[in-house]
Amino acid sequence: MTTSIDTVAQTADAAARALADVPPAVRAKALVVFADALTANAEELIALAMEETGLAEARLRGELKRTAVQLRLFADTILDGAYLDVRIDRADPEFALGPRPDVRSGNEPIGPVLNFAAGNFPFAFSVAGGDTASALAAGNPVIVKAHPGHPRLSRRTAEVGAAALDAAGLPAGTLQLIEGQDEGTAMLKHPLVKAASFTGSLRAGRLLADIAAARPAPIPFYGELGSVNPVFATPAAIAERGPEFAAGLAASVGGSAGQLCTKPGLVFLPADHGLDKEITAAVAAEEQRMLDPRIADGYLHRREAILSAAGVRLVAPGSVRVDEDGQGWVTPTIAAVPLADFRPHPDALLGECFGPLTILVESPEGTDYAELLDTLFEGELTVAVHRADGDDVTALVRTAARRAGRVLFDGWPTGVAVTPAMQHGGPWPATTSGGTSVGTAAIKRFVRAVAYQNAPAEALPPALRDDNPWQVPQAVAPAGESAAWGDRAI
Amino acid sequence: MTTSIDTVAQTADAAARALADVPPAVRAKALVVFADALTANAEELIALAMEETGLAEARLRGELKRTAVQLRLFADTILDGAYLDVRIDRADPEFALGPRPDVRSGNEPIGPVLNFAAGNFPFAFSVAGGDTASALAAGNPVIVKAHPGHPRLSRRTAEVGAAALDAAGLPAGTLQLIEGQDEGTAMLKHPLVKAASFTGSLRAGRLLADIAAARPAPIPFYGELGSVNPVFATPAAIAERGPEFAAGLAASVGGSAGQLCTKPGLVFLPADHGLDKEITAAVAAEEQRMLDPRIADGYLHRREAILSAAGVRLVAPGSVRVDEDGQGWVTPTIAAVPLADFRPHPDALLGECFGPLTILVESPEGTDYAELLDTLFEGELTVAVHRADGDDVTALVRTAARRAGRVLFDGWPTGVAVTPAMQHGGPWPATTSGGTSVGTAAIKRFVRAVAYQNAPAEALPPALRDDNPWQVPQAVAPAGESAAWGDRAI
Repeated sequence: MTTSIDTVAQTADAAARALADVPPAVRAKALVVFADALTANAEELIALAMEETGLAEARLRGELKRTAVQLRLFADTILDGAYLDVRIDRADPEFALGPRPDVRSGNEPIGPVLNFAAGNFPFAFSVAGGDTASALAAGNPVIVKAHPGHPRLSRRTAEVGAAALDAAGLPAGTLQLIEGQDEGTAMLKHPLVKAASFTGSLRAGRLLADIAAARPAPIPFYGELGSVNPVFATPAAIAERGPEFAAGLAASVGGSAGQLCTKPGLVFLPADHGLDKEITAAVAAEEQRMLDPRIADGYLHRREAILSAAGVRLVAPGSVRVDEDGQGWVTPTIAAVPLADFRPHPDALLGECFGPLTILVESPEGTDYAELLDTLFEGELTVAVHRADGDDVTALVRTAARRAGRVLFDGWPTGVAVTPAMQHGGPWPATTSGGTSVGTAAIKRFVRAVAYQNAPAEALPPALRDDNPWQVPQAVAPAGESAAWGDRAI
Repeated sequence: MTTSIDTVAQTADAAARALADVPPAVRAKALVVFADALTANAEELIALAMEETGLAEARLRGELKRTAVQLRLFADTILDGAYLDVRIDRADPEFALGPRPDVRSGNEPIGPVLNFAAGNFPFAFSVAGGDTASALAAGNPVIVKAHPGHPRLSRRTAEVGAAALDAAGLPAGTLQLIEGQDEGTAMLKHPLVKAASFTGSLRAGRLLADIAAARPAPIPFYGELGSVNPVFATPAAIAERGPEFAAGLAASVGGSAGQLCTKPGLVFLPADHGLDKEITAAVAAEEQRMLDPRIADGYLHRREAILSAAGVRLVAPGSVRVDEDGQGWVTPTIAAVPLADFRPHPDALLGECFGPLTILVESPEGTDYAELLDTLFEGELTVAVHRADGDDVTALVRTAARRAGRVLFDGWPTGVAVTPAMQHGGPWPATTSGGTSVGTAAIKRFVRAVAYQNAPAEALPPALRDDNPWQVPQAVAPAGESAAWGDRAI
């Protein structure tokens, strides 16, 4: 371990102890100050992001706004206090198993969190993104391992963020930045780091998850590893609104040059959809730059492999070229394959293709989508169902709920709403844990419950006290209730 | 993989799918029927348990009652529905980041759960125990790997349980039993098993946790691995109620022949406590049988090592003898060591000693307990604080909350209350996850959230519908609220 890694970890540990003394209102205020600082520095940050990532200005402007809104949402989450899951069981001399003590529990911060930033969301899943916001909201210091795709933006965002948190009264070291792959790995092994989050590839995520699990003291590792996001369209849906479907598909596949973990990768639809012309017409003609040469190279090879697989034909050929700097420039590619060719060798087409390409799987009349989803897929961020009134999609929806974190209807999986109910995560390999990295439930990843038994009021955390100074929700089990347990069920 | 393991897993998978159609009221009723069946068969089950484990009748009678009460508590938990964490974000055309869809999320069952039963709680942490109850309550089928210490009891409990669940209308295969170490390991690797729980030693738990993490598709592994459960007594507490302290200590160390994960293993108290006579008098003179010859052998060796460590003296010598069947018979041993001898070589005395032995660490005036706890301990199920009015234990309590899952005052960690607020779990190595295996929060381990976006009402799980037929708590975020996010904090 290099000295600097140890110093950063020690600083985070000291910050964790100091944060324990910071009232939630101050922590909430600090998140708002952080959000406002991002907005105040928007022009500089967006210019840096455009230069380093090649993402379009409108997209980055929207993403920065999303990032600021997300910090404000978590400020609200802190003050609401429901995430503390406070439970109070009053002492009960008549308890079914003999006299019971007063027991109270609530969530407390888990300790320093290491956040591996993503390359495809330089704001929303990077230094000031959802993992950082949710870990800070829970009361933990955060160490961000910068993504190498936008180093200057990462440094500047960390400066802006650390200054804002400092100005708002949070301890020094509440937000720190480290750079370098070896440094990230060394930090993941540091005993003072208590949880880690990651957004990126399955390969890298698995490597890091294995490191976290193999530590002398294992820690939770929350990896968001991407997905194929299958879409299933019924014949009635296509008959009812085929052109709208084609336009939505083209927009969803092409947005951000297809570099989104929620991009629809496989679209199951009737073989006689007849939408080739509409899709081709809807696909954007303007080239977009990919994030970096490595991603462009990966896309180039994956696209070639898909297009050369048995039975695959081009609907909208799209384009991909590499410039003198190694940067890739692309327009969306829409391919199609008959289910009869796909089904015998699904592995050739099932893996995620990170870029603006999707495959239409043309399915004969009477195809059982639920069976296909159940048999071919393992864990997905999303499953989308396009249906019309009168379609019975019960079996498909139930299967989708077993295979994905989000099931959406008559829409496209890109464009993740940052709201309390959002679930952005699914069974392995979509995520390592099934947790969510978007929405207020993301905070659950960075807390753990502590119970206090027969504690004098002055030794209790304020949220667990009878006078409830923070006015958080408290679930109180009164004395005497145990006698009736189970009676409601009879 | 042997055929029978695969058959059991396939049966569990089929049961998981069928359970999805079972209304919660039927699931709750089934848990009550299970509880009542345990009670109806109590005489037979207790007789089997006494024979196989050597535990005392009174203890087993209380444990069986606890196990039945626990099943009834989880029946209540299902009907209450708070564990579903239902969130409803209504569609909002004025959302801060542009029009947002209707998004609703709630917890759903994770899938078949494998439960490695414990040896020291043949009811409460075995076939019908807390891990089984919480996994069933969440709507998952359970495969129990029987503990080899009580095979006949395990089989009989599984028969009683499966018959009760069947009679209550749950699918076949909702509760299954497997036996054998290799079979347990093979099942842990089976792709249809979606989560596992375990109560036992750090060594075995780590082995299994590593297997779960190394699977092609890793699964959550909830191991409860035991603890030293340090106790800290202030000079004022000992001065105020020394004899009561001595009696409580003796009872807590000796109960169930010390074979409890919450047994206090290290007791820090003032060097001038003067309680040798009271402790010796309070220690039980009657021999208790240990669970099995392997545990007796482990205790014998660990006890010898502790008693031969530098500076250790005997307060109450206790006894240990092995009979012709290899069974160990014990009375409690209370040792003592000056802090000055303990501190330089803490590893010799820090590890858990599974049996009726505890070590008094005699600490000079002015000893900083918070610093000791912070420096020497990693993760514990419990930390107990004995104090008197006027003692400032703030720093000690705060440190205890970082190191343990339960902080208790003026009492002993054995005797875990089965109530909604109980937290039985702590940071590694007390548990693998920080989760709890006792109390209603244990159900959280066996669910995962699924979000539905723009779903027609008929495609939604009942708990997420506006008409809320199950009458569960729904956290509703109305349209328009995002404009005010963060404003409360300013």
